[in-house]
Amino acid sequence: MTYCVAMHLADGLVFISDSRTNAGIDQISTFGKLFVFSVPGDRLIVLQTAGNLATSQSVINLLEQRTRATGNHLLNVATLYDATVLVAETLREVVLRDRSVLTEEIELSSSFIVGGQIAGAPMGIYNVYAQGNFFQATPDTPFLQLGESKYGRPILDRNLSYCTPLDEALRCGLISFDSTIRSNLSVGMPLDLLVYRKDRLQAMERLRITSDDPYYRQIRQQWSDGLKQLLAELPPPPRDYLAE
Amino acid sequence: MTYCVAMHLADGLVFISDSRTNAGIDQISTFGKLFVFSVPGDRLIVLQTAGNLATSQSVINLLEQRTRATGNHLLNVATLYDATVLVAETLREVVLRDRSVLTEEIELSSSFIVGGQIAGAPMGIYNVYAQGNFFQATPDTPFLQLGESKYGRPILDRNLSYCTPLDEALRCGLISFDSTIRSNLSVGMPLDLLVYRKDRLQAMERLRITSDDPYYRQIRQQWSDGLKQLLAELPPPPRDYLAE
Repeated sequence: MTYCVAMHLADGLVFISDSRTNAGIDQISTFGKLFVFSVPGDRLIVLQTAGNLATSQSVINLLEQRTRATGNHLLNVATLYDATVLVAETLREVVLRDRSVLTEEIELSSSFIVGGQIAGAPMGIYNVYAQGNFFQATPDTPFLQLGESKYGRPILDRNLSYCTPLDEALRCGLISFDSTIRSNLSVGMPLDLLVYRKDRLQAMERLRITSDDPYYRQIRQQWSDGLKQLLAELPPPPRDYLAE
Repeated sequence: MTYCVAMHLADGLVFISDSRTNAGIDQISTFGKLFVFSVPGDRLIVLQTAGNLATSQSVINLLEQRTRATGNHLLNVATLYDATVLVAETLREVVLRDRSVLTEEIELSSSFIVGGQIAGAPMGIYNVYAQGNFFQATPDTPFLQLGESKYGRPILDRNLSYCTPLDEALRCGLISFDSTIRSNLSVGMPLDLLVYRKDRLQAMERLRITSDDPYYRQIRQQWSDGLKQLLAELPPPPRDYLAE
């Protein structure tokens, strides 16, 4: 499985992905799930992916090698919407190609988050379903999730809004990952992280956070201790709750 | 959907269930999912259920009316293990009966938690799968969940152990429900609650907690405020995390 979060906030975008891939629980590997396509001064496009690894990789490879050919590609399309259409079409192309020779029932599809900004247009994040149709996050719900989304969702639902500053949103996102990783073996470190500030249009690299990362260790510990204390400080239940 | 939690702790048992039933999102009703079978001084057996409402109700009804007939039933079986076998057999009986006339593909099954204590034996909680096989919680993992279990799982994983006192465990459980209810429409108030103290063997009634319940409102608010503060108190991320 996988866990990816993307946030579209007033000040910028935050992308976080885990890196665990498994085919059965005895075949676990590390594969990045966050990819960057950028032209400095013109565009930054980030892709995150969940689902069938072969399909995800084929889609990313095709998108990448097509940026060196003529025709529409991620580095020349006019809008983020068109970039998302391109990702969706490439996904359908790969699934169709690989499904045609399938003799058993295997889930081939992948889903994607496509986010970023192209010069002259606002930022955006899109969720591409495994079927290739897609929707965009809006200020009412400023985040998207892929994969094992439920463990880490309450902290986002409770604390994230469109106006949350980037540094707060990033902490909230990292805690959402920590909760997921503690409860689900199929989501694992390291994390890939990219924070984009509105209108920067810079070429940016993802940052890799390992489990030894001092900042990540510090906030995990502080959060865990804080939760224990918070729980201990809740008032005791009424006597009839406890059948006393 | 549904959310139920049962805990087997050193001092006793805690059972909490939501009460939302839905058949599609435009057909939502309130049905209790926590049932008690007891003989004062001899046994207390609690059932919690998730899944197909017709099946769950039939199983509960058959188990209830059979306590007034001859033969093995929940009020006379010798062990909690045998009580669980009885629940599982009744579940299989109902599914087999109703499936035999089915003309379309409908998920008929239900799952159950069976917990309690019978005089002379230790307490226990069992998880009965939809197929009728079952397993028992042990001190390593002292809780069981049914239904929408992922949203509310991190708080249990982080804070619950076999030696957690009953009042702390109850608070932890209620927060687990609050997190689930905020993030998932298919789980809803009121909650049914039963706390059993080891070796009491009393006849006990479930307690119903509505959304107006002053204690529940207080801990929800305090938890929500506390989380916000905890998040705000986490140290700011390093500058390179934020692409500054």
